[in-house]
Amino acid sequence: MADVLKFIDSELGRFKSELYDFLRIPSISAKSEHDADTRSAAHWLADRMKDAGLSAEVLDTPGHPIVLGEWRGAGDDAPTVLIYGHYDVQPPEPLDLWESPPFEATEREGRIYARGSADDKGQLYMHVKALEAHLATNGTLPINVVVIAEGEEEVGSPNLVPFVEANAERLGCDVVVISDTAMFAPGLPTLLFSLRGLAYFEIVVKGAKSDLHSGEYGGSITNPANALAKIVASLQDEDGRITLPGFYDDVVEWDEETREQIRSLPYDDEEYRKELDVPALAGEKGYSTLERLWIRPTCDVNGMLSGYTGQGAKTVLPNMAMAKVSFRLVPDQRPSRVKESLEAHLKQVTPPGVDVDLIEVQGGRAWRARVEGKFFDAAAEALEEAFGTRPALAGGGGSIPIVGEFEEKLGAPALLVGFSLPGSNLHAPNEWLAIENYEKGIGALALLYEKLAQ
Amino acid sequence: MADVLKFIDSELGRFKSELYDFLRIPSISAKSEHDADTRSAAHWLADRMKDAGLSAEVLDTPGHPIVLGEWRGAGDDAPTVLIYGHYDVQPPEPLDLWESPPFEATEREGRIYARGSADDKGQLYMHVKALEAHLATNGTLPINVVVIAEGEEEVGSPNLVPFVEANAERLGCDVVVISDTAMFAPGLPTLLFSLRGLAYFEIVVKGAKSDLHSGEYGGSITNPANALAKIVASLQDEDGRITLPGFYDDVVEWDEETREQIRSLPYDDEEYRKELDVPALAGEKGYSTLERLWIRPTCDVNGMLSGYTGQGAKTVLPNMAMAKVSFRLVPDQRPSRVKESLEAHLKQVTPPGVDVDLIEVQGGRAWRARVEGKFFDAAAEALEEAFGTRPALAGGGGSIPIVGEFEEKLGAPALLVGFSLPGSNLHAPNEWLAIENYEKGIGALALLYEKLAQ
Repeated sequence: MADVLKFIDSELGRFKSELYDFLRIPSISAKSEHDADTRSAAHWLADRMKDAGLSAEVLDTPGHPIVLGEWRGAGDDAPTVLIYGHYDVQPPEPLDLWESPPFEATEREGRIYARGSADDKGQLYMHVKALEAHLATNGTLPINVVVIAEGEEEVGSPNLVPFVEANAERLGCDVVVISDTAMFAPGLPTLLFSLRGLAYFEIVVKGAKSDLHSGEYGGSITNPANALAKIVASLQDEDGRITLPGFYDDVVEWDEETREQIRSLPYDDEEYRKELDVPALAGEKGYSTLERLWIRPTCDVNGMLSGYTGQGAKTVLPNMAMAKVSFRLVPDQRPSRVKESLEAHLKQVTPPGVDVDLIEVQGGRAWRARVEGKFFDAAAEALEEAFGTRPALAGGGGSIPIVGEFEEKLGAPALLVGFSLPGSNLHAPNEWLAIENYEKGIGALALLYEKLAQ
Repeated sequence: MADVLKFIDSELGRFKSELYDFLRIPSISAKSEHDADTRSAAHWLADRMKDAGLSAEVLDTPGHPIVLGEWRGAGDDAPTVLIYGHYDVQPPEPLDLWESPPFEATEREGRIYARGSADDKGQLYMHVKALEAHLATNGTLPINVVVIAEGEEEVGSPNLVPFVEANAERLGCDVVVISDTAMFAPGLPTLLFSLRGLAYFEIVVKGAKSDLHSGEYGGSITNPANALAKIVASLQDEDGRITLPGFYDDVVEWDEETREQIRSLPYDDEEYRKELDVPALAGEKGYSTLERLWIRPTCDVNGMLSGYTGQGAKTVLPNMAMAKVSFRLVPDQRPSRVKESLEAHLKQVTPPGVDVDLIEVQGGRAWRARVEGKFFDAAAEALEEAFGTRPALAGGGGSIPIVGEFEEKLGAPALLVGFSLPGSNLHAPNEWLAIENYEKGIGALALLYEKLAQ
């Protein structure tokens, strides 16, 4: 193992420069004009897997391809580890807020700035390099490995579950390892105990046959934008509780041990407030900020549009208003039940004089880890050895719906071992990854493979 | 008088073709790329006034110019009539919804389709032609005339009041005549007894320093778009009453005579509902549709914007949300008091965790006519003679803030005598004016000048 870590140390310059090549490919899955780039990133990744000593294929799907890397030389007694990541990235817009070009990795203040550096190319590539370190040093790996890298994570992974179902045998494994999350704080390696799910909708309120003059017609019909405001406002009460009928029926009340573990983390509300630059924190009554972020559901408007939004006054009475509204879910909520509940609620609160359409845009279940067992312990040990401190146990506010799907379809527990840091601007301009974490992360993963085999 | 009307009849073809030249000039006051067009429309109009026998000037303002036409040959015993109109038009967008080009007048089904045909070039030009008919036939006019045509009505007339104040003596008059409104129904000439005022605001809710990931941060801070929905929803109660403190203090309760007059008009809720294609009409409890449109104030969202509004899901927690919210006012409400009241309301209802800015965009007072007196009677007689039926007395839902200003600054009553028709797509694609009303309107105005002198 010492040689493996020494190899990583000596090759770090090359490992970074290869990553920068990967980051240079604008594999923006949401934009069809980047389809060729996205495919090119898949092929680039497959080639690097081969360079590392894996076999690798680019497999077509109805959308962007899936890259599958394999090494099965550890024998039947060794565990098989499925490593999941994604090679697609979010759109970089707004471009003018980037301090350096989004697709030209730039080192500043110990960080690698580029779209995808943290989410998820940088973290996915750590695995490729950790695998290479073993194979280059020892000619072998302590585990059997399947790496599955998709190109549609940022668009809701529409083709991944069908792929997993169709290839369940080939993807069969004992444990799933995913590096697409953050450490709780610099220097504090982290294992996740949960992820929130997502139920994302578009609510469209429709009024008259066309936009109308607000003077000529105002007062006589329901304004769809006013109606939409009433609808959105009705989704939460004064205590920040979501008002949909039965919404909390499936919400797990977490054990006191987990809540105590959350309280023990190094965290300060005032620092968090200052970092976000808001006048005050707010959320569901009766819960701390970290609990609100990890173990409680939310209702957030992600977008809203109606009428005239340019400069100055246009006295239009719009005939349409739209809001994108999403709920972050916690175990054991299900998107389909939230949809039913929202439909029932809309029937109750929609004012007369308008029609409402509810469109389901995206959904994914929440996930709760088994925070025990030999694989979990192995991960904790590897992180402690690499970072010199016992890992934190943290929740994840975001959603990686595939985690629950992997566990269900493959019958293997998932380990969420991530190396980005809070504030690393995922999905925003100036995304970054700490160079130190790129280096230590590769080492930690190399150690993890070793310990998973024990 | 018979000769004047005969002249109008014989010259109608030319009157239309001149109007089509006027309509061809895209004098879109809101768009600076059309500044030259707007100025060119002013000069075209001044030239036509001269052709008609008036003296005419194009007078500069800090914005678009004002055209002033004068004829003062009727002597001191004759009344002086100020005719107001505007030569600027609304932007034509969305262009793809026009069935014929917006700046190429097209006759279909007895209508002239073009931007500005009804609002207000067509109606303004009727006056020029009615004046010409008198002067060409008799070499004189029964009244002294000042025609004031502005080029900024569609952008809130920022320079008109200062102009009126600076030129009060030159604009001195006994009565103001404005043709920028509609008849209540085809064949039913109409005099307005009121106009609503306007108080137009932008409410901007600001949260964190930047957009955030709705998974990573959702639940811990106030979402500005959710907060904006709460604010907008709070502006009206379940009965459609506006909740701002003191909002109704200055609202005039109209006399039973006026309400009876409104009830007597040929109007049907179900026809109106079908025409607008809404599932139901709605508005303030306790009032009929026409009362809601004319004598009761409103609160309408004109535009709303926050976060991601493109296709599909973007899990953004926006850091800004904006709504354009306007109130139509009735006598004796004042925009300044509404602003104070809205400010007080925002302080009460804004949830913690966000900041709110209130921006005043536009304001104008409501107007109430004196529905009696010799000028009013003269107008009623002229309309009855031209259309063969007693004119209706109707309210106006829209706002022409200058009406009240003229009355106050010049000490003369205003007559609102308009010839467009309901549904003529003002401020929308496919604006039109009935050809019959263009012809009859010119005759009615020629008669009006005659009767105002009696």
